[in-house]
Amino acid sequence: MTTIIPDGFTVRRIDSRDFDGAKVALAGLTTVGEISQEDFNSILGYWDSVLLPNGKQAYNTFVITAKETEKVAAIGTVFVEKKIIHNGGLVGHIEDIAVNSDFRGQKLGKVLINYLSSIGKQLGCYKIILDCDEKNVGFYEKCDYNKAGIEMQIRYQ
Amino acid sequence: MTTIIPDGFTVRRIDSRDFDGAKVALAGLTTVGEISQEDFNSILGYWDSVLLPNGKQAYNTFVITAKETEKVAAIGTVFVEKKIIHNGGLVGHIEDIAVNSDFRGQKLGKVLINYLSSIGKQLGCYKIILDCDEKNVGFYEKCDYNKAGIEMQIRYQ
Repeated sequence: MTTIIPDGFTVRRIDSRDFDGAKVALAGLTTVGEISQEDFNSILGYWDSVLLPNGKQAYNTFVITAKETEKVAAIGTVFVEKKIIHNGGLVGHIEDIAVNSDFRGQKLGKVLINYLSSIGKQLGCYKIILDCDEKNVGFYEKCDYNKAGIEMQIRYQ
Repeated sequence: MTTIIPDGFTVRRIDSRDFDGAKVALAGLTTVGEISQEDFNSILGYWDSVLLPNGKQAYNTFVITAKETEKVAAIGTVFVEKKIIHNGGLVGHIEDIAVNSDFRGQKLGKVLINYLSSIGKQLGCYKIILDCDEKNVGFYEKCDYNKAGIEMQIRYQ
């Protein structure tokens, strides 16, 4: 499956230019906190350093940007885990999907999920999983995901 | 919270001796496949190599073993992810929890979840998440976990 990127947008791996745009988009999802440009660069550097056994990156955070303004319209990650099960298989975890509110209604969320799913598939994942609110199940079903279970959490902060 | 390990059992990080025991326990959960001792050692070596920004291990797979026989009674992982959100926070993912059927009914599952949760907390995770079948929600609630959302998946193999 090739992901079609809508006219006027580009998809690429996150980089240090995305400091403000990533924070704005993610703030629509949850608490981001007071991270500096230096903290941000340090996280991206850490992510780049974590490799899979096949030498590819385990953290794959991509942004969809508006071509003219370079604004971050959407952001999301597929983070890949090496397992013993399934013949030492790889599982992708889709995390922290956010669309900047200025760019809603353009189906960029679906574009991003399709793109991240194709990245996970190319990396050799036998499955990709994600957790969402009950109200977003229909959206993910349109992205070819199916219900698989219940997410449980324990919070320390 | 200190985890109480039942008499006759030890909890420790997985190592190469656990090849057979880990496979037997995990086979009760899902497909393990034809991994060799060499493949197994290679996965453990890879896991050891993946460090968090704080220098601690990102993959934390522990086994509960029977002291007398060294048999693997239970196995589970807390795998830690570095995020941008929550001030560059860490999230633990509990994965692949399995109790060998010979050791059921001894509450080792709860012991293991408590132990892995305490590991994740010590590593600095602001939360730990896991996915389970609807029928196991009650068990995880007894381990102080709460429902947080729906797990969705796409499968490629």
